[in-house]
Amino acid sequence: MNFRAIALPIGRLLLLISLLMIIPAMADVFASNPDWQVFLTSALVLGTTGVLMTLAFRGERPPGNFREALIFVNAAWFAFSFAGAIPFYFSGLGISFTDAFFETASGVTTTGSTILTGLDVLPPGILLWRSLLQWIGGIGVIAIGIWLLPGLRVGGSQLFALESSEKTNKPYGHVGPFVYRLLAIYGGLTVSCVLLYLMCGMSFFNAVNHAMTTVSTGGFSTSDQSFGQFPGLAAYWVAIFFMLASAVPFLYLIRSIEHRRFGEDIQIILLLGIVAAAAFTVFLLQRFMVEDAPFQTFTFAAFNVVSVITTTGYAANDYLQFGTAVIAIFFVLTFFGGCSGSTSGGFKMFRVAILTSYIRALLRRIVRPHRVIDARYQGHAVSNTVLEGILVFAVLYTGAFAAFSVVYMMLGMDLETALSASITALANVGPGIGETIGPSGTFQSLSDTAKWFLASEMILGRLEILAGILLLSPDFWLE
Amino acid sequence: MNFRAIALPIGRLLLLISLLMIIPAMADVFASNPDWQVFLTSALVLGTTGVLMTLAFRGERPPGNFREALIFVNAAWFAFSFAGAIPFYFSGLGISFTDAFFETASGVTTTGSTILTGLDVLPPGILLWRSLLQWIGGIGVIAIGIWLLPGLRVGGSQLFALESSEKTNKPYGHVGPFVYRLLAIYGGLTVSCVLLYLMCGMSFFNAVNHAMTTVSTGGFSTSDQSFGQFPGLAAYWVAIFFMLASAVPFLYLIRSIEHRRFGEDIQIILLLGIVAAAAFTVFLLQRFMVEDAPFQTFTFAAFNVVSVITTTGYAANDYLQFGTAVIAIFFVLTFFGGCSGSTSGGFKMFRVAILTSYIRALLRRIVRPHRVIDARYQGHAVSNTVLEGILVFAVLYTGAFAAFSVVYMMLGMDLETALSASITALANVGPGIGETIGPSGTFQSLSDTAKWFLASEMILGRLEILAGILLLSPDFWLE
Repeated sequence: MNFRAIALPIGRLLLLISLLMIIPAMADVFASNPDWQVFLTSALVLGTTGVLMTLAFRGERPPGNFREALIFVNAAWFAFSFAGAIPFYFSGLGISFTDAFFETASGVTTTGSTILTGLDVLPPGILLWRSLLQWIGGIGVIAIGIWLLPGLRVGGSQLFALESSEKTNKPYGHVGPFVYRLLAIYGGLTVSCVLLYLMCGMSFFNAVNHAMTTVSTGGFSTSDQSFGQFPGLAAYWVAIFFMLASAVPFLYLIRSIEHRRFGEDIQIILLLGIVAAAAFTVFLLQRFMVEDAPFQTFTFAAFNVVSVITTTGYAANDYLQFGTAVIAIFFVLTFFGGCSGSTSGGFKMFRVAILTSYIRALLRRIVRPHRVIDARYQGHAVSNTVLEGILVFAVLYTGAFAAFSVVYMMLGMDLETALSASITALANVGPGIGETIGPSGTFQSLSDTAKWFLASEMILGRLEILAGILLLSPDFWLE
Repeated sequence: MNFRAIALPIGRLLLLISLLMIIPAMADVFASNPDWQVFLTSALVLGTTGVLMTLAFRGERPPGNFREALIFVNAAWFAFSFAGAIPFYFSGLGISFTDAFFETASGVTTTGSTILTGLDVLPPGILLWRSLLQWIGGIGVIAIGIWLLPGLRVGGSQLFALESSEKTNKPYGHVGPFVYRLLAIYGGLTVSCVLLYLMCGMSFFNAVNHAMTTVSTGGFSTSDQSFGQFPGLAAYWVAIFFMLASAVPFLYLIRSIEHRRFGEDIQIILLLGIVAAAAFTVFLLQRFMVEDAPFQTFTFAAFNVVSVITTTGYAANDYLQFGTAVIAIFFVLTFFGGCSGSTSGGFKMFRVAILTSYIRALLRRIVRPHRVIDARYQGHAVSNTVLEGILVFAVLYTGAFAAFSVVYMMLGMDLETALSASITALANVGPGIGETIGPSGTFQSLSDTAKWFLASEMILGRLEILAGILLLSPDFWLE
């Protein structure tokens, strides 16, 4: 194990974070808010550390084998959460370091759970830093989904490995060309989203912040009312479009744009199908309760459904007030998540598709014993290794959800709060169910211990569990 | 498909039920309660139907292929629930047929959820009928666990198929000798339990009723206080012993007694380990809250833990009042269940053992790619078919739990009530979590629709899901 190979990119990451901090510093200078000193000092300290680490370990090869890659990605996520928390802690917010870490982890994992209230009156630097954390986190998530998880064969994601024509022979050589295309699409989506939000009447500051937290499916907002602060319905449809666009596989986007042909993708079809069914059901259930115009009710229903299933976590209104049937739908949607290799978290659509196909095949074979079992995906039989990976993922996902739920109950949460806190963190959604952590509450009142567990669960969810818990296995560390 | 082959044993079952009804009828005659007429009339009507069916379909071969066996076992469970509900409906209880069906289904599946209050003042016939339903249901459950599920390879239970030395060549010929041994052990356990309960100071009526609902891990009691009505702690330890004895594999009991040697069984070790850990934790958590003598606190903790994990469902006290940590433990225990081929329901210990071993092997292989994956059980590698069956079972168990939970929320239950109602029915435990359906509440206040769903879920759980949902598959009915 070569820890120096891991320290080098961590140093570069710290340098990147310190550079990013100049943006909120400038915003606060512009707004005459004294927090600019906090951001600049943090940037200096982190930048110096980053430069020193880069110099000390220069010339090291990048993390080569999968052990080093795993350690790096875990370390990177925690380092980002610690480093990003520094300005929150020293700023005028006056929050504890636990709260600062929670908020940052929730940001970089694009979860979007918050411990802050009074967002509407916070200085621009803080708000911008939250949005930036999610935006950068989103890139990290896509990168993990495209390179790390398929390489590690986590949960069947080898299905989405780059094709050989998209790679070169040099180690990491295949990363280069793809990174530029990825950044171009991600940046393109963000800029388009900003422009459309502006056209819908958002202020420039709101448009930029919300565009960053929309395309990263993060869900931080600039108001306690979340997206509910915007009166015009057009902005909701813009958000629906970009949340969905960011929840589809970025490889699909890259390839489709390259070949100028948008083919069928079972993940996207499934996602849209579930969204349509859920939005329509929520709409019907709400029609009996609210006196708003039907189009507004439908807009809010569709927006909230898309927000939860893409693991964004904005709220148009407090959807929990519309009865247990609606709560049930949102609780279930929290588990699903979007597509592989996107910014969304959760169980993912390809696993839903393959698992459904596999179970149907198995049930069929019980009746017709001589039939061959084959789980199918996009018209092709799925290999045993992929299937095995998906089954293991299903078990680990359920297991992690249950284990963290028990921890939260041990820490005093009631069953509803504990279960929804656990799944909203694991699937990186944001809001939970119930008065405390629901869309109109915050995570502020939870205990410090609970916040540390939740932040860790968010990172575990981002690493699709396996890439996180492997480090806890003694076998991993033994040669 | 030969429906006549199914009608014959159903006719015999009705005849058996009608004969059983003579017992509560006699108890009510003895107590001068007019309900004896209801039991006797029901017995006459059902008995006549049973005799007519037996005569009409006499000479039919027994259900031969697995399709017929499956239809029979589903039909038998529903027929038993309908037929057994008749005296409840016409008795002095004055309950709706929905309630009568719910109570009966909860009885024959040995679940033990009840819609009745004021048990302490009910006539003896009704109380005895409830206990008898569970006692007979217990035999049915063991029979399904020993013959049907291994034959159908449901959820990996082919592991527990009878050895060839235990079978004869005649179809159903292997059933005979085993049935007698099974009945002898089940009867022996019941009689021993009655005697020990009597020695602990229970009345004869209470001893008989509780012995029947203890060895069937059913959990119906003769008091609203459930087992809490008994002051002496000795009775609790008798119950603990017999609940555990009925939750171990009956094949293990039969073979051990036959060979006069009690070998190691991983299921039993695992069950006892979980019980010890949970009981001790609950004890520690309660020590800070109650002022009872430590031994009483420990007795109640152990009793409640054993009651839930063996899916019995008695309560020594309202364990939900001791905080969310204790609630979490009981909620989790509700999922587990006892061992294969016992009267207990739930996920079952052998699946826990094999799944744990498999996941550990998989995680190990990710680190050491060339290592062979083998899930082990009792020191032997587990075949792929068994493993596949267990994985499918895990998915279906989770899926059924989730699907029914959503239904209950759609029907207006809050998240906590819905989730705990769903798992307590599926695992055939009895009480849920929360004020309504917790150990100190009843299922009375739920809607009729909810009660029909719950009763169906209990039967689905008893048939280990697969043997129930196969009938819903179009493939099953197509040739």
